[in-house]
Amino acid sequence: MTLPVETLAINTIRTLVMDSIQAAKSGHPGTPMSMAPVAYLLYNEIMNYDPAHPLWSQRDRFVLSSGHGSTLLYSVLHLAGVEQYEDGKPTGEKAVRIEDLKSFRQLNSRCPGHPEYGHTSGVEVTTGPLGQGLAMSVGHAIASKWFSAKYACDGKDLFGFNVYSLCGDGCMMEGISSEAASLAGHLKLSNLCWIYDSNKITIEGSTDLAFSEDVPARFKAYGWNVVQVEEDVNDLDALRRAFAAFKAETERPTLIMVKSVIGYGSPNLAGTAKVHGAPLGEEEIVLTKQFYGWNYEKFAVPEEVSKLFADGIQANGAKAYAQWEKDYADYCAKYPEKAEELRQIAAGELPEGWDAGIQQMWEPSEKGDASRNSSGKVLNQVAAGIPWMIGGSADLAPSNKSNLTFEGAGDFGPGNYAGRNFHFGIREFAMAAICNGMATCGIRSYCATFFVFCDYLRGALRLSCLMRLPVLYIFSHDSIGVGEDGPTHQPVEQLAALRSMPNLVVFRPCDANEVRFAYRWYAENQKSPVCMIVTRQNLPTLARAVEPTGDVCACSCGVSKGAYVIRDAKNPATGTCDAILMGSGSEVHVCLDAQKILASKGVYARVVSVPSMELFERQSAEYRESVLPKAVTRRVAVEAALQFGWDRYIGPEGKFVGMTDFGASAPYKQLFEYYGITAENVAKVAME
Amino acid sequence: MTLPVETLAINTIRTLVMDSIQAAKSGHPGTPMSMAPVAYLLYNEIMNYDPAHPLWSQRDRFVLSSGHGSTLLYSVLHLAGVEQYEDGKPTGEKAVRIEDLKSFRQLNSRCPGHPEYGHTSGVEVTTGPLGQGLAMSVGHAIASKWFSAKYACDGKDLFGFNVYSLCGDGCMMEGISSEAASLAGHLKLSNLCWIYDSNKITIEGSTDLAFSEDVPARFKAYGWNVVQVEEDVNDLDALRRAFAAFKAETERPTLIMVKSVIGYGSPNLAGTAKVHGAPLGEEEIVLTKQFYGWNYEKFAVPEEVSKLFADGIQANGAKAYAQWEKDYADYCAKYPEKAEELRQIAAGELPEGWDAGIQQMWEPSEKGDASRNSSGKVLNQVAAGIPWMIGGSADLAPSNKSNLTFEGAGDFGPGNYAGRNFHFGIREFAMAAICNGMATCGIRSYCATFFVFCDYLRGALRLSCLMRLPVLYIFSHDSIGVGEDGPTHQPVEQLAALRSMPNLVVFRPCDANEVRFAYRWYAENQKSPVCMIVTRQNLPTLARAVEPTGDVCACSCGVSKGAYVIRDAKNPATGTCDAILMGSGSEVHVCLDAQKILASKGVYARVVSVPSMELFERQSAEYRESVLPKAVTRRVAVEAALQFGWDRYIGPEGKFVGMTDFGASAPYKQLFEYYGITAENVAKVAME
Repeated sequence: MTLPVETLAINTIRTLVMDSIQAAKSGHPGTPMSMAPVAYLLYNEIMNYDPAHPLWSQRDRFVLSSGHGSTLLYSVLHLAGVEQYEDGKPTGEKAVRIEDLKSFRQLNSRCPGHPEYGHTSGVEVTTGPLGQGLAMSVGHAIASKWFSAKYACDGKDLFGFNVYSLCGDGCMMEGISSEAASLAGHLKLSNLCWIYDSNKITIEGSTDLAFSEDVPARFKAYGWNVVQVEEDVNDLDALRRAFAAFKAETERPTLIMVKSVIGYGSPNLAGTAKVHGAPLGEEEIVLTKQFYGWNYEKFAVPEEVSKLFADGIQANGAKAYAQWEKDYADYCAKYPEKAEELRQIAAGELPEGWDAGIQQMWEPSEKGDASRNSSGKVLNQVAAGIPWMIGGSADLAPSNKSNLTFEGAGDFGPGNYAGRNFHFGIREFAMAAICNGMATCGIRSYCATFFVFCDYLRGALRLSCLMRLPVLYIFSHDSIGVGEDGPTHQPVEQLAALRSMPNLVVFRPCDANEVRFAYRWYAENQKSPVCMIVTRQNLPTLARAVEPTGDVCACSCGVSKGAYVIRDAKNPATGTCDAILMGSGSEVHVCLDAQKILASKGVYARVVSVPSMELFERQSAEYRESVLPKAVTRRVAVEAALQFGWDRYIGPEGKFVGMTDFGASAPYKQLFEYYGITAENVAKVAME
Repeated sequence: MTLPVETLAINTIRTLVMDSIQAAKSGHPGTPMSMAPVAYLLYNEIMNYDPAHPLWSQRDRFVLSSGHGSTLLYSVLHLAGVEQYEDGKPTGEKAVRIEDLKSFRQLNSRCPGHPEYGHTSGVEVTTGPLGQGLAMSVGHAIASKWFSAKYACDGKDLFGFNVYSLCGDGCMMEGISSEAASLAGHLKLSNLCWIYDSNKITIEGSTDLAFSEDVPARFKAYGWNVVQVEEDVNDLDALRRAFAAFKAETERPTLIMVKSVIGYGSPNLAGTAKVHGAPLGEEEIVLTKQFYGWNYEKFAVPEEVSKLFADGIQANGAKAYAQWEKDYADYCAKYPEKAEELRQIAAGELPEGWDAGIQQMWEPSEKGDASRNSSGKVLNQVAAGIPWMIGGSADLAPSNKSNLTFEGAGDFGPGNYAGRNFHFGIREFAMAAICNGMATCGIRSYCATFFVFCDYLRGALRLSCLMRLPVLYIFSHDSIGVGEDGPTHQPVEQLAALRSMPNLVVFRPCDANEVRFAYRWYAENQKSPVCMIVTRQNLPTLARAVEPTGDVCACSCGVSKGAYVIRDAKNPATGTCDAILMGSGSEVHVCLDAQKILASKGVYARVVSVPSMELFERQSAEYRESVLPKAVTRRVAVEAALQFGWDRYIGPEGKFVGMTDFGASAPYKQLFEYYGITAENVAKVAME
């Protein structure tokens, strides 16, 4: 029997999947085996994708939201012959070679257990935590619409692309997929296509155990175009019709629902939970290959399959890219300014003079301002200088001060896809994941909510860190300073919880000027997500020593170094300080007031502002010693949060003034008194 | 004009709302003003509720998921005359007095900014973080079904109750509400009724900005009974018909959708976002009261309104409770064993001999077992002894080892509401919130997922802590020991993130015997949620010194004290140890192996097992000093996680062996080598 070459190609995917997982003795074959036809068709026929240029800005995106099915992606990336790029440049290697498939799930393999962004070219985002891939694909679709609206000229769109995401029952059950789907429907993202593999099997068994909703009806309720493929998923023409229906749709996102048999082809395991997350075993692989009519060695790619991809995605992609390159050269000639912006976006650079509009130093002021207000001002100044900085809040923009209010900023939506203000709705988790998706397209995305609700989006914040995306998180209402809303709205443990996350930079600025420099650090960094933790309540704008140069380096450098001496004191008798008071955000001025009280009692205390523990940890031992000299063991840290994480700086003899439990509902000034977070108490503790 | 007394009652709620918020100069009047008719009708007519017995097990539950509308609840609790109970006993005071309304949002008021469980009688759960109230109400509805199925006899149900939850657009947009609604539909919770206040306004403005889905169609897709009240929300008869439709439904949960005008009655603010979260102002209150035809003083309750509640909820509730009390006395006489169980549930006691089935000490074993396996065994032994311990996993039961496998445990579902195993589906956040809801009904609820996905449910875990509910969280696959799945599935920061949360007890047991005692601590505690952090990979079962009594106190007491000397070492020259090695979970045996290496080099190192930092912090300074003597500054902490949070124990001269960034995909043994989390490296670091 001779199989059609497309079937052979699909079976090649399946056998690469089985062989990789068997070699690793670990992995998830079920979904890749059943979804191989979808992956084949998408890559070799449906998507606009040039394997030689996996960073091509107008490429269609594919997001494997069911990240555990990574071998499906790796196999098709191998067959497509996607080039490996590193630091934006081709390495001359293929992204996924046969030896990479053979080392699936081994240390330093290009084929780790779940797809990892930045590690394997062709992987658009890191997936695995269920539901998030779908939400990130919404971010891609938004980016596509935004680039089209902002940069397309003369009726010719060299920027918009389609976005495909494959998901299973797991992604469908996760709340984030509901949030993302509802918003995508609202935004009429007609360039978005989710393929839902309804195989009715989850780890615990049949989906009948927990999942009986009518998914197509649910998506229609979100305003989606729903296409149900009633035929077998192996019926390529049926799939082609479904994708054609997606491409024909101009108003709504599309859900293509396919019904599949998990582990298709395995005589003894297909259709069972057993094939979800474990290798099939050598014997079953033999039987399954028999079922496929497969007569090749392990890890084999038949020549005619290679040719099929050469004639398909490789030829079509090369042609499309060449045409785009030509058109884009014309565009660049005609619109050099736009072209320069696009180059900067791709390179991760900032525009010349991006910071020209940033506020000069604020004058000292006892009354000062809430740091959410100074954050709002500087955000606007920075965003005005970076035209591709866009974002918004989960329905708290008036509280978070996260709106871009300058001329022309506009609201993003079906009427204006060039708008820069997003209304994410009360959907924190999807908001953050969407920002991750946008960021992978070069957009400087930001989002905002109350600090306490960072718990709702933590899963996505973790992926920002893991993917090293410079997403900005604006978290206002940062402590018991929230006041009357009470403990449900008062963060006490969130600072520690964020500080524990690798590659995250958390700023809690003590006044408007620290806000200013924290934003500068954010803008200039390309590799870390940044959390801007700002107050609801007013903070004094602090007086600072001005350097002999007339500069404000103490503040500027200090913020970027994470901690610095904001006001020193020296005991005339010893020439050094007797004690160190340190704190962040709204507690720095408390420390400064305590310093005065202590001085009146003959105790000379240095005050150290700690806007970012993470940046301080990145400094040299010398710098850290210069700020917190080991010899000074009389130390008090002050923060309207829990002590957890401060011991490193306090040392065994130091003290902490802050919270020990959840907060309470009352006017905030009263709460600071009630919990003893006052200059008087800090001075008292320092005297002990 | 004389208003109907019911209108007067509704306007009383509204004016109490406005006056409380104005007095506080802070609060959210919009929803309470528009939803007053719903609250009035629910309490005075629809719900089975005795204000004199707010802990009555069969009372209907009301959950204000839009917790910011707390004054609605407080006002109606005041009018209903709910008694204040503390520690399960009546205090003789009303829960919400006029002076409490006057001190809304002030320190120690019975009327904090958001409703707080355990603080004000009549408040069934703490709400404010949007969406979670809805999910907790699903927990209530489950508890109701479970109590009915397990305890009702002779065709007479003294246990089941109805559950009502009021929500707005915010709750509807949150992903958790989708998860909870999908599961509620699947479970056919016909006793559950959500009232959705569709006022089309959120903080940023019209819901048109972000929310255009067809909510009724979405709920129909979940398998719900959807009732749309087309009339004005002030039309009580229309509301009555809707509630009648709910009560008549026997198969599906019900969504009642009402369309309201936010801030109803305010001439200048109604229908705008301005009335959502700020007092109306004195002048506008005057105008609004004119609109209501209100001719009373501030905080007034007209006599006829008091009488209406006396004749309504108070009379009906007293009658219903008296009948129940009589019937329940008969029940107790006939079914004393069941009655005793119910008494224990209400009292938070454990059954006599609950621990009889718990595993004896495991024998030392080099091969040992994964702590997820020993966890699964002890979970089953404990649950067998506590018949009201029920729970399950977010589709990972086979991996988490969270199934109850003993005879008769059964699966909870429409066919068997007495089942004890839950299939929550891939819905971590709703799962945890549902467990919170169940726990407030006396059930010892537990849930399970991979440790890394605790990020997905963190918002609900926080409420477990805040409400002081002894919910058990089983988190397996606790470190890079996950191996091949890679960084998306490997927790590195989650231990620190959990340890930062107030009132949470985190156990990371080092072997099967620590697992055993950690479960004992969990079962005997009534006030703290507990996280059981267990491994995927095998851990040796450690040999332990047996006390002179032949007892294993060192382990038993040690676990309950959070940290203890698991194997000491003394330098014969000094009589003390030279160094301390400490760790938790899978790193304790690494420390013990390192201890041997160090001994061979003449360094005598004590090994301290730290299964729970939180419990260790609760011990006396003496005990802590006895375990970690200050004099011994040569210390190494070892944990396959980040250092954050360990500095307190390491001290300024100590070292840490663990992770510094996210993990990687590879077989786990290789990863421990790669990251240097080995006995050899620990010994090396200790020698430095």
